[in-house]
Amino acid sequence: MQTVTRVVLDAMGGDNAPSAPVQGAVDAVNARNDIKVLLAGQEDVIREELNKYTYPEEQIEIVPATEVIEMAEPPVVAIRKKKDSSIVVGMNLVKNGEADAFVSAGSSGAILVGGQLIVGRIKGIKRPPLAPLIPTKKGVSLLIDCGANVDARAEHLVQFAQMGSLYMENVVGIKNPRVALVNIGAEDEKGNALVKDTLPLLRECGDINFVGSIESRDIPQGDADVIVCEAFTGNVILKLYEGLSSTLISVIKQGLKSTFRSKIGAALALPALKKTLKAFDASEYGGAPLLGLNGLVVKTHGSSKAVEIRNSIFQCVTFNQQDINGKIKEYIIDSQNEEE
Amino acid sequence: MQTVTRVVLDAMGGDNAPSAPVQGAVDAVNARNDIKVLLAGQEDVIREELNKYTYPEEQIEIVPATEVIEMAEPPVVAIRKKKDSSIVVGMNLVKNGEADAFVSAGSSGAILVGGQLIVGRIKGIKRPPLAPLIPTKKGVSLLIDCGANVDARAEHLVQFAQMGSLYMENVVGIKNPRVALVNIGAEDEKGNALVKDTLPLLRECGDINFVGSIESRDIPQGDADVIVCEAFTGNVILKLYEGLSSTLISVIKQGLKSTFRSKIGAALALPALKKTLKAFDASEYGGAPLLGLNGLVVKTHGSSKAVEIRNSIFQCVTFNQQDINGKIKEYIIDSQNEEE
Repeated sequence: MQTVTRVVLDAMGGDNAPSAPVQGAVDAVNARNDIKVLLAGQEDVIREELNKYTYPEEQIEIVPATEVIEMAEPPVVAIRKKKDSSIVVGMNLVKNGEADAFVSAGSSGAILVGGQLIVGRIKGIKRPPLAPLIPTKKGVSLLIDCGANVDARAEHLVQFAQMGSLYMENVVGIKNPRVALVNIGAEDEKGNALVKDTLPLLRECGDINFVGSIESRDIPQGDADVIVCEAFTGNVILKLYEGLSSTLISVIKQGLKSTFRSKIGAALALPALKKTLKAFDASEYGGAPLLGLNGLVVKTHGSSKAVEIRNSIFQCVTFNQQDINGKIKEYIIDSQNEEE
Repeated sequence: MQTVTRVVLDAMGGDNAPSAPVQGAVDAVNARNDIKVLLAGQEDVIREELNKYTYPEEQIEIVPATEVIEMAEPPVVAIRKKKDSSIVVGMNLVKNGEADAFVSAGSSGAILVGGQLIVGRIKGIKRPPLAPLIPTKKGVSLLIDCGANVDARAEHLVQFAQMGSLYMENVVGIKNPRVALVNIGAEDEKGNALVKDTLPLLRECGDINFVGSIESRDIPQGDADVIVCEAFTGNVILKLYEGLSSTLISVIKQGLKSTFRSKIGAALALPALKKTLKAFDASEYGGAPLLGLNGLVVKTHGSSKAVEIRNSIFQCVTFNQQDINGKIKEYIIDSQNEEE
């Protein structure tokens, strides 16, 4: 019998809601029959969007939620007060085992807080990290933590390394993934206090393929599969990646339009160029999972379009089928036994 | 009477030494007569390089130094032991007032340590930051600190903001430069402990144009002129900037060569494209000054070519003519008086 993965999708979250989430859900169920999408949000609004499409109706269900958490709301207050919001209703379904995963392009803060308060941490996990895939010259790397827990300690970074390694091996399919710690030099005497505390712990960690420090310069080359860092650093890396790529691409487009000759050249070169640059487009790789929770929570970019939502849903299926949470639990029990 | 700026140049430092430093020195003195370059290093080696060029001989002098500090040497030991190295000899000239500035493409660690131990800090400056200019869509921004002092405290970041502001206004010529603090969100409740400690201090700082938090995504757009951050973060930003730019440009070149049609297009578009990308080439903007010392110390990239060395020498002239150190001293005295 086929396992069906049940994904709650926040139909009200993100800049393009409800149209992008609804279309993403439709695209996902039209592509695969091992998915059921539960669309959480305002029923009439969702119904109106759904009516535009043809799809296997038994694979999409609406879960009514009347409230919407806005981007600017203080996360803790929003999660506590808006009990009938799409985020709270959706996460409760995961908590109660009625769904396997929750996907949202809504408020990052509310998703991080809700993940911890509602879905809850796996026993033994100290801090659940946010871990997006970032494009590199060789494929993708997992950046962990990119924003969930600022001022983390060395023991947290070790868990990030372990969970990230499991994720890359089982969800992305990289055998024996190379794990590296973000540092400002290759030598062990380089780094801040956190890095100096973490390096020896990672070297002792027998169950991961730790390859040492990585300088940020080498991340885009794909020199490691799992890039471990504290959340402030990770967030700076992720956002600079986005900002610098889009600035450079716009500068290049300007350059291509600057002379008559270059305009003709650009017209000829553009199709091939677009194909290459697509490989550097983060939206191809789905959303960022918040790892270490009792269920999967995936944060997609606020500006997500249907394709990113669809890919995030696919990501949940692999996560579920590979039983990543089961594997994380085993890991944590093993590590704790070793400590005793 | 014209002021002549005396710059000691480390002829032995960097991947392209001695040819790049010597050529950079020659190019600098051929372009301007208000510069004297003191080439520190092995006399015969320098002499041989110099013999290749024609230049006003009274503007270049060789300062013999028999030893060379290698990139891999532990900096503190190297500075203490190699008394006759180009770095130690050169920095002593600045310390003794026989030169105004020291420029090197050699070991960053040795330059940072030598700057503090030999040239020494301006009284009242707690930590001298390394502050390179980085290219943006609108021009350049100063990234301060990008690697000199990891684990800095809020009071250090305030001094970075003040010194960076002075530098951008007087050396780069940006009136009333916008100063921003690197953060992971625009709201004041975002950030790590250091950022939360620093934000209110910067807001109170009446003598700078503090515009609040900046997310790394907005740095390449040129949304601030002075980008203040702790050294670990700054180093990650600087190196990712370099790494991502070069990876994207190589990916784009690959894309342009991928089909016959795109190859023809590329040939037509390349001259215009190269011109645009040159604006994003950090080597155009000289080296990174180590601010707050009794004299100017400039670290240029290890892979510096003659053009970067020449531009770093020009940078020293502006720094000297604008009396940046005099202005930093005034600032510090003012701030200390305010505190009393």
